Order: sequence, then structure tokens, then C-alpha cells
Amino acid sequence: MNVEADPAQTGPDGVDVTEEQLDDIKITYVKVDPEGAERIGKKPGNYITIESQAIRKQDTKMQDELSTCLSKQLKKLLADNGIKDSDRCLIVGLGNHRVTPDAIGPFAIDEVLVTSHLFELQPEAVAEGYRNVSAVTPGVMGITGIETSDMIHGIIHETNPDFVIAIDALASRSINRLNATIQLTDTGIHPGSGVGNKRKEISKETYGMPVFSIGIPTVVDAVTITSDTIDYVLKHFGREWREKDRPSNALSPALNPFEKRRTLTEEDLPNEEQGQAIMGMFAKLDDAEKRQLIKEVLTPLGHNLMVTPKEVDSFVEDMAHLVSAGINGALHAVIEDSDAQSYTKF
Amino acid sequence: MNVEADPAQTGPDGVDVTEEQLDDIKITYVKVDPEGAERIGKKPGNYITIESQAIRKQDTKMQDELSTCLSKQLKKLLADNGIKDSDRCLIVGLGNHRVTPDAIGPFAIDEVLVTSHLFELQPEAVAEGYRNVSAVTPGVMGITGIETSDMIHGIIHETNPDFVIAIDALASRSINRLNATIQLTDTGIHPGSGVGNKRKEISKETYGMPVFSIGIPTVVDAVTITSDTIDYVLKHFGREWREKDRPSNALSPALNPFEKRRTLTEEDLPNEEQGQAIMGMFAKLDDAEKRQLIKEVLTPLGHNLMVTPKEVDSFVEDMAHLVSAGINGALHAVIEDSDAQSYTKF
Amino acid sequence: MNVEADPAQTGPDGVDVTEEQLDDIKITYVKVDPEGAERIGKKPGNYITIESQAIRKQDTKMQDELSTCLSKQLKKLLADNGIKDSDRCLIVGLGNHRVTPDAIGPFAIDEVLVTSHLFELQPEAVAEGYRNVSAVTPGVMGITGIETSDMIHGIIHETNPDFVIAIDALASRSINRLNATIQLTDTGIHPGSGVGNKRKEISKETYGMPVFSIGIPTVVDAVTITSDTIDYVLKHFGREWREKDRPSNALSPALNPFEKRRTLTEEDLPNEEQGQAIMGMFAKLDDAEKRQLIKEVLTPLGHNLMVTPKEVDSFVEDMAHLVSAGINGALHAVIEDSDAQSYTKF
Amino acid sequence: MNVEADPAQTGPDGVDVTEEQLDDIKITYVKVDPEGAERIGKKPGNYITIESQAIRKQDTKMQDELSTCLSKQLKKLLADNGIKDSDRCLIVGLGNHRVTPDAIGPFAIDEVLVTSHLFELQPEAVAEGYRNVSAVTPGVMGITGIETSDMIHGIIHETNPDFVIAIDALASRSINRLNATIQLTDTGIHPGSGVGNKRKEISKETYGMPVFSIGIPTVVDAVTITSDTIDYVLKHFGREWREKDRPSNALSPALNPFEKRRTLTEEDLPNEEQGQAIMGMFAKLDDAEKRQLIKEVLTPLGHNLMVTPKEVDSFVEDMAHLVSAGINGALHAVIEDSDAQSYTKF
Repeated sequence: MNVEADPAQTGPDGVDVTEEQLDDIKITYVKVDPEGAERIGKKPGNYITIESQAIRKQDTKMQDELSTCLSKQLKKLLADNGIKDSDRCLIVGLGNHRVTPDAIGPFAIDEVLVTSHLFELQPEAVAEGYRNVSAVTPGVMGITGIETSDMIHGIIHETNPDFVIAIDALASRSINRLNATIQLTDTGIHPGSGVGNKRKEISKETYGMPVFSIGIPTVVDAVTITSDTIDYVLKHFGREWREKDRPSNALSPALNPFEKRRTLTEEDLPNEEQGQAIMGMFAKLDDAEKRQLIKEVLTPLGHNLMVTPKEVDSFVEDMAHLVSAGINGALHAVIEDSDAQSYTKF
Repeated sequence: MNVEADPAQTGPDGVDVTEEQLDDIKITYVKVDPEGAERIGKKPGNYITIESQAIRKQDTKMQDELSTCLSKQLKKLLADNGIKDSDRCLIVGLGNHRVTPDAIGPFAIDEVLVTSHLFELQPEAVAEGYRNVSAVTPGVMGITGIETSDMIHGIIHETNPDFVIAIDALASRSINRLNATIQLTDTGIHPGSGVGNKRKEISKETYGMPVFSIGIPTVVDAVTITSDTIDYVLKHFGREWREKDRPSNALSPALNPFEKRRTLTEEDLPNEEQGQAIMGMFAKLDDAEKRQLIKEVLTPLGHNLMVTPKEVDSFVEDMAHLVSAGINGALHAVIEDSDAQSYTKF
Repeated sequence: MNVEADPAQTGPDGVDVTEEQLDDIKITYVKVDPEGAERIGKKPGNYITIESQAIRKQDTKMQDELSTCLSKQLKKLLADNGIKDSDRCLIVGLGNHRVTPDAIGPFAIDEVLVTSHLFELQPEAVAEGYRNVSAVTPGVMGITGIETSDMIHGIIHETNPDFVIAIDALASRSINRLNATIQLTDTGIHPGSGVGNKRKEISKETYGMPVFSIGIPTVVDAVTITSDTIDYVLKHFGREWREKDRPSNALSPALNPFEKRRTLTEEDLPNEEQGQAIMGMFAKLDDAEKRQLIKEVLTPLGHNLMVTPKEVDSFVEDMAHLVSAGINGALHAVIEDSDAQSYTKF
Repeated sequence: MNVEADPAQTGPDGVDVTEEQLDDIKITYVKVDPEGAERIGKKPGNYITIESQAIRKQDTKMQDELSTCLSKQLKKLLADNGIKDSDRCLIVGLGNHRVTPDAIGPFAIDEVLVTSHLFELQPEAVAEGYRNVSAVTPGVMGITGIETSDMIHGIIHETNPDFVIAIDALASRSINRLNATIQLTDTGIHPGSGVGNKRKEISKETYGMPVFSIGIPTVVDAVTITSDTIDYVLKHFGREWREKDRPSNALSPALNPFEKRRTLTEEDLPNEEQGQAIMGMFAKLDDAEKRQLIKEVLTPLGHNLMVTPKEVDSFVEDMAHLVSAGINGALHAVIEDSDAQSYTKF
């Protein structure tokens, strides 16, 4: 499990951010060019974030739509990277199948459609419109004793695919993205980063072929929960004070009775004096400082727990199903969006 | 899943609090008499809290000790309530077997030793030292469509036990008790409380027989995490300032290099002015006000998540095993503490 | 787990047998009246057997058709027994959730639609076309220590339904019905029969309300496998000899190239002399004698194993899903056959 | 899943068979030299079969003894093949984790002790007496799309171990070895044999390092069940006739009241005339002919099912635990036989 990439909130030079809203789904495209990459400290490439409450709400219909959306975005990203229908794909399910919030990768591998053995053993039996696909679950170092990147290296070396798609659960950097976003990139993966300094990248630079990743934030730490909540509290009061001063609340969009849920934005933050009255010195800290300070308090107490929503079993099962259906739809031309669900194995 | 009872921090009249420390285990006994009960708004009876890091640390040896400790405490509580060796026991595993953090009850039922059918069908085959025990998992209303208390009522009515032990996962009121405490009472249960106002108590008052409960906090909400953390931050800075003013840090017990983990206490809280500097108005709120305020901000955003540690699968499996071994040891005179583990079914 | 009822192969007086073939599904209706009941030693009532290779072939489309068929047959059987839309149903999932081939009942209960709690707590929220349904898994005596029939009695007593549907895995009396039939009756159940002589029936006679059962053969013993195979061998050679003597094989339906699978029938049995040449004295034994003899040989050796197909995990999961969808469709007028699948919980 | 090797019943030249009996465990050593190998059509090397009813009887104490026995046999086999304490081991868990009777390999991998990452990342933290061990589950071709032997090749190529131990479930060639034997060899593996003709051996010959295999028969087909049973029936009657003719049954060991279970042997077979009376032409067929004939009858009917005992869930879980404890004990000098159980991860 890796930590979620920090999404670029603003677009400095060399970082292009666009958004799209489709009914209940919001898509954010961040394109980072080499110059921008240096500025924001991320690899150049495409970062696509798909947001939806489909999993949290356990809404089957919304999940089908989200799966179809993932399929389209992935198909487009493959095309943008020059992937042809005849290119061979290796899908890698990262994570630990015995730790449910870390099991999206392994669970999805059980459901994706594999065809590579048919191409090899009975090529005449493979119908038009199917891609050559294989899939592996390299496991985690605590169970295999082998660095995940070494394991993947061995398998890539043996199967020699034209491109790789990796699926992984992520540690979320924000409470509101937990089980509510799918992150798609073409910038490669660093499996097992965080353990020692021996991280080994699997990417276009190191393997000469495109490496796509699909990441889903499933856990969050207590520091993030507290830091986010302090931020929400500040904005909440900031907005309250601002609205109180307005001539008529009736015109305030924030009170629009048709709006289902109030979202808080940067503009809601209170001024310095107000902030300090509510939250003392915490109001003056930026996000990184706030997190650092909370971490310093919680860690020695043993309370910086990494947590996952109580409904983890169904969230992870649903997400794995949705992701595998989305991948199947993107990889095989023969699968229509509408019936991608019926191509998963379970 | 019920909410954990609020442990009495102080002992007003009619509330007797004593503590015991055994190596890595801390036991708190709270005895509430009828007068005290009215004062603190809880039912009269015994509330025993056993604290240990055995599960969080995934330490098998500590878990065996914790199981033995639970066994002894439960055995004593049964004796204090006049339970005889010949009394028949019904064990009730509350919770949802498909939601892992809520599955301790059902999982434990799979492992406890049942003998009631042998007493009925082959009484001559039951060796000396075994108690007549049966066990049920009533399920949750979302899966059965039946109020849990009604289900238990039907089964008690049919099996007619002499006493009941109920096992349930709890929502923790504090981050530091999560998966780190077992709560034992003789005051009965209110299954399914929280859903509607139709709660029905199962206790000595309603059934005329002792009803014991074993509760384990496995989930916590974002409000609690944030509220606890704000409290830790205040104490952390309060202590830092206090220590800075002392003539010599060398004598401070808080800096004792042999102390494994610094625990923060009420005395560490900063004075009013300091508190306000750190946390603004939050420093002035009492616990209930702080929680209320945070809840009002998080709930409309849909972010007051109920969460469980990432390691939920092994935590719950270990805890269910430990609890069932503890119950087996307490119920059957023939089982020695040292071999209680080998009497569980799995 | 009970033993499958012996299907009446022929129809003596008072036993009415009719068959229906729907594409890949074969339905056999056996109606036993009180006179016939005495003749064949079975309870009077309706016995419906639905045969399909949908599960064994792991064919999703055929499984949907089978589910729809079950739904229609159950709906009709309910109507024939005078069940009205307003009648309240209790679904009972018999079996052991920890023994996969015995877990169809418990697994199906996890998926059926329950509404009883909504009728009680929020009647205004229940849309037209839903029936009042509750569901329980009483467990098995080895885990609860309680006779299954006593447990069900307690729950019926408490919830007071108008009719009961019980789901159970069965021990098959024939290799060819294993995971390939669903048996539907309105003659009640005898949970836990086979353990001691304390069986207690749950039926119209004992409870004054219709009790339906849905049984699925999932296991078979070595005696049955051997006995069936000896029978197939005899018929196989009987047919071979018969066909050899015919003037032209070209006209033989048994060799029809369009026939997918040759089925052997009673008419294929060889004559006495031929039979003895092939199988010695076994050719002369009737089915019961053959089984008895094989049992006497295998049992002392410890080899009369009860077995289940290797694919038990997916067979049982698929069957539980199919059965729960079929029940949902039969119970709630609002569910169309075509979308019954989407009303299961998983 | 491979088919069990045919155990050499007799010892022709070049095939050395010895037996050992330890309380409830029987060990058969078959040593095949190159000459014998040609004669019996098997690879030269050691074939050790450990028989015990520990799993079938679900007897924890017997399972511990069996695990210790496996540990000793494996340790000796390693030594006989010149394996040193400093040699690095790769454990390969063959099979499909989603098909329980085929999941012993993957389940065991979850429990074996791995240390390779510690040797690489923190060599100073590895205590004396631990071996460098890594472990993988290559998966099955239906889920990965990759030939298992190719997957293993890639991993061996990457990790470069000094020897390999492979764990696999087997299709049993006899009803009485089902879940009752562990087969140990030093002759390598042919993963995925049976699918196409592309089998690729992993053995000393192909990789230049010892490859050990641990195989456990968990499934059996209907042909084997029937063929074995016909054989038992013949011997049963053969013995009955023979005993009838004896002057005094009182002296017959077969009727010894202290003997727990009668075992039938080759000497119990009836003479030709008797055999034919009982089983017709089947009495005259040898084992291969009998199996062939039954297969020809059952296969076109779709009834040559591959089956596993009903208790498959606990059998496979227990066996995986036992095997992983046995391997841990054999690989790490620091693990005493008596505490091997506590080194498994679950």
C-alpha cells in the first residue's frame, strides 16, 4: 500500500488542471509537463482523479456508472500513450489478500478476464476483439520475503508484456477521498515504497513500456482525520460569520434548500483574528505544519492509528468488482460498456 | 453493536472504583450501588474493564495471558452473582458476521464449547466438570428483519437457561481503548439500541436471571478521534510548558529514559490562557461540548465516518479466539487456565 | 443436512407424476394423495423437482433462467396452498455456515430481502408490492448445543409467521442429481433428522400453517457413487448388445449425432444372463440390496466418505445466490422475474 | 493440481521399498535408482509416503505428531540431498486459493516463516538458527493466464535460491489415501501437467538445484471410488469364504476383537470362479482395465466427477497448518519440533 499522490490543487506553469462533471461523478485531469514536474515535485504525466460516492452509498447503479466511467478514462489514457489493440497487457494486483483494506489489488485480479494462455495454447479459439492479457498478484514482502518490485521484475522479464496496469489500495491524504476516488496515472509505480530506502520504480523510464496505475484510497490515519476536521471547523465558522453579515440570507447559495450537501471551500476560511479565536495557533499553521504537529503528539502515544471505514468488507469487495469490470471494458474491444459486469469471473 | 458505557472516571458516593495492575494488564473495577446509579445515570452493578495492548501488538503470549485474566474475572463475577456449577448457560453472540469489526460475537460463538445437546441426548457421556452450555448468534435486524431482543427472547423462552453471557463489539468512546479493552458487566444488555426507540432490555430485572456482557470496542468515529487528539495536543503543550519552568528536568519522571511510553494525564492540561493560545475556544469546551461541536461540522459533510484499524481482520479473529477461550475457562471447571486455548474449536 | 426424499419413479394409485421440459430445464411434479402416501411411505403433498445443468456448467445465463423457473414454481406452490400477498413469511436457512457444502441455507439467508422490521418500525416507508418477510439461520446442534427444531420453534413462537420456507442442502440419493436439482415441497421439514431419534417435524400438521422446503443435493456418499456406476455399466453394456443386434444403427435414436449426451434408461438394462456375465451377482440385486451390500463392505473400512464436487465453493455460492433470487421473486409481487437478481444483497 | 504418483507396490530391481510404523503413523520409503526408474517408468529419486488418520479424525494431538514427523522426514531428505543450513530456500505454493480442495499450497504459504527480506534489509537483526527463506504462490493459469512453470521460472531467475520446496494438492489414485497421506519427493515437479502438452519440468535436471515436493491427495474421481470399492467387495467376499472354511474362527486374527479396523489385503482376493460369481467380468480385469472401462461409461454421461470430502474446509485448513509447521521445523535449526506450531503466522 502506497500513500496517495498529493493532488495539485492549483495549476502552476507546466501543470494543466481541468475538471468535468458527469451527474454524480467528478473527473479531474492534471497534466504535468517536465517543467511543471520539477516545480511541484511529481513525475511528469497524466493524473486523473474520478470522484463518486457510489461505494460509500453502496449504490449498485452508481457503481455501474462509475465502472463505465473508469473504463472510458482508462481506454482514453491507453490510446493517449499509443497502446494498440494488439499490445499485450500484464495486470498487477498489489497488496495483501489477508488484510481487507489492502486487498483491492488481489481481489480484482481474481475477477479480471485473462486470455494470454488461450493466445498461446489455442490461438484459433480466441475470438476477434479480445486482447492478450495476463494477471499476477506478487504478494507483500511480509508474506513472500521478496521485494515486490523484484517479484514484478521477474514476472515482466518472463512474460514480456507491452504494457502494465497496476492496481493498489492507497493511504488517503484526505478524509473526503476515502473510498470515494479512483486515481489513474500513466507515471508508473513504486511498489513497497516506505519500507527501507530500497524502492525500485516500475515505469516507462525503467522498463521502456507504459506503466499505468489505478489507486484507491482505502485507509487514512488519525493525523489526517484530525487535521481535516480542524480545517472543516475553521471553514464552518468562517462561513457562518460571513453569512451572518450579509444583508439577506435568502439569496445565499449556501442555504439553497435544493442543495443536498454543503461543501466547504477555501473561501470559507475565517480571517486571522477569527481563526485564532476558534482554533488558537492551529489556525495559523499550514497543512503540513498542522499534520506534523499532530503527528508528534499522537505517535509517541501509539495512537496514530491507520483506520478504514467499518464497512470495509463490502467497500473493498464492491470496489474490486467495479475496478476489474472497468479494466475488462478498457482492454477488450469486444466488451461493451453495458455488459462489462458480466465478464468478471465472480 | 452498542456504544461503550462511559467509564466512571471519578467515584462519587455509591460508586466504588478500584484498580489492579498485573504485568501488562490493568483491571479497573467499578461497583455502582443503587444510589450511585442514580447519580451517574448508569445501572447498578459491576463494571470491570481489562486493558491490554495484546491485540494491537499481535503478541500471542500476551493474548494468552489476557485470555486467562478474562477467564478469572468472569469466573469471579459469576460466583459473585451466585452462579453454581450446575447452572445452565446460554451464550449469545451479538453482531453481524458479514461486517468484520462487528463480528466478534458471531466468530466467538463458532469457537465456544457447547454441551447442552450432550446433556440432553447422552447425559452419561458428559464427563465431570463440564457445564451445560448452549450458544446462539441471533443476527442483526438488517439481515433477519427481526428485532435482536425479540430473537433472543424466543430462544431464552425455548431453552430456559439459568444465566446468559452476551458478547458484542462496541463503538469506542475513546481512541486509546480501541481493540485494547474488554469490558465485563453483570448489568444486562440492550441489543439493537440505537435503532428506533424500541429497545428492549435483557437483564436480571426483565428475565429474573443474571445477564452478563462482554464488550470489546472495535470501532470509533471521526468525532472521537478528533476530540481525543485535541485533548492530547492540549495536554502535550501543557506539560511541555510546565516542564520548561522546572528547575531541573533531570528529576522529572516524565522524562525518565526507562519509561517506554509517556502517558498524558489530566494534570498535564494547560492553564486557560495557554489553552486558548493553542486551541482557541476549543480549550474552554468540556468533552461533551467539544464532541457536539465537531459532530455538527462533520455530519452534514458526510465525514463522521465510523472507522476500525486497518488490521481489522487479524484483530477481530484474535479477539474472538481469546474471548471464547476465556469463556470456556470460566464456565467449565475441568478446563485449566493453561489449556483453555486447546478447547476452542478452531 | 437431510437425505434427499426418494423420488417416486413410477406413479402408483394416489401418486400423480407429470413432467415438463423447458429448454434446458426439466420439471417433475409428483402429487401424493393420502392413499398414495401410505403406499409409498411418504407424506401427502406436492414434490416438485427442477433439473438443470446450470450450476455444474457454471453458466450464468442458465442460472438466471433456473432462478426464474424456481421463482415461478414457488409462486404457484404458494398460491396452491392458499398463501395471500399479505401473509407473513419466515425463511429458515438450515445448515452449517462453516461447512461449505452444507452452507446453502445460511448463505441464502444473507441474500434474501427482509422487510419485517420495516413493516414494524416504519410501515409508511414500505412500498406497495412488498411482503412482510423475516429470515433466520438457526445453526447446527454441534455449534449451538440446541436441537435445530427447538430453535426454530422458539423463533416461530416469537415471530408468529403465516408460513415458513426452509432452505437446506441435501445428501443426494443419486450421482446425477448432485448440484443439478432443486427440490420443492409443501410437506414440511424434519431438521436434524439422523441425529438420535428425537426428530421433531415442522409442518402444517404440527404448526397449523404451510411449511415449504427448498432442498438442494450437494453431497453424495461413496456407496451411492459405486451403486449408480454399477447400474450405468450394466445399462451401457445392455444397450451396446441390443444395438449390435439391430439391422441398422443409422436409425437408432441413441446414435443421433445431434443428441448432445446419451442418457441411459431402464430399458437399456441387459437380460439376466448378460447381466451376470458383466457384474455377477450384483446384476441380480435390486437398488436397496446393492447399496446395503456395498455399505457393509465400505463402512468398516472407514471409506464410506460423504463427498462433494471439487468446485464446491463456486457451486454453493452460485446456488445460494440463485435460490435467494428465486425466493425474492416469488415472495414480493413488485419484483419482476427479469430483475430478481438485483434484489439480492450481494 | 497434479495426479498422485503411482506408489510402487512391489520392489523390482532398482526399486527399494522399506516401511516404518510409528504409533498411528506409517512411513513408506521408496528409493528408485536409474535402472529401476526405467523399469517402473518413474523418475529416479526418493519417494516418501507418510500415512495418518490425523486429518480425517480431526484429532489435534495426532496432527501435531504428524507435523513433527513431516518435519523430521523433510529435514533428513534435505540432508540426504546435501542441503546446508546456509542454503537459501524458495517455497512454492501451487494451486488455486479460490478452490478449497486445491488451496493447500496457497494457504500454507500464508503460514510459513519467511526471512529472506530480513537477511537482505536487516541482516544484523536475524538471529542464529534461521535460514534464508522466501515463499510464493504462482497462482493457476485460469486466473493468471500464465503457465505456472513460466511464472516459477521467472521467480527462480529473480531470487536465485539454492533449493526449492513445492507444496501441492493432488488427485488421489486411491480412496484410502485421500486426506490421509503426505507424499514427499526429491524428484522435482511438473506444474500444470495435464493442460496441453506444454508441461515444463522444474527439477535438478533442469535447474541444477534440488527441487523437493510435498503433495497431499485431496480429491478423487468417481472412477477411482467405484474401482476401489469393487476391489474391496471382491476381497471382502474372498475373505469371508476363506474364513468360513477354517476349522476355528476363534483363532482368526481378522476377527480379533481388539483390532480396531479390518484391513483388506491382496491375499483376501477370491479365486477366479468365486470372483466371477460376485462381480462377473470385473473380477477378471486388472486395475487399469477396470478403471478404463468405468471411465468409458461415466465420462460421456458427465458423471466422472472429481470430488472431495464434505469436511473439505477444515481438512484443508488443518493440513495447510500442519504442512507449514512441518516445513518451518525442517528449515530453521532454531525451531524445536515441540514448538513448531507457534511459528506459523495464524
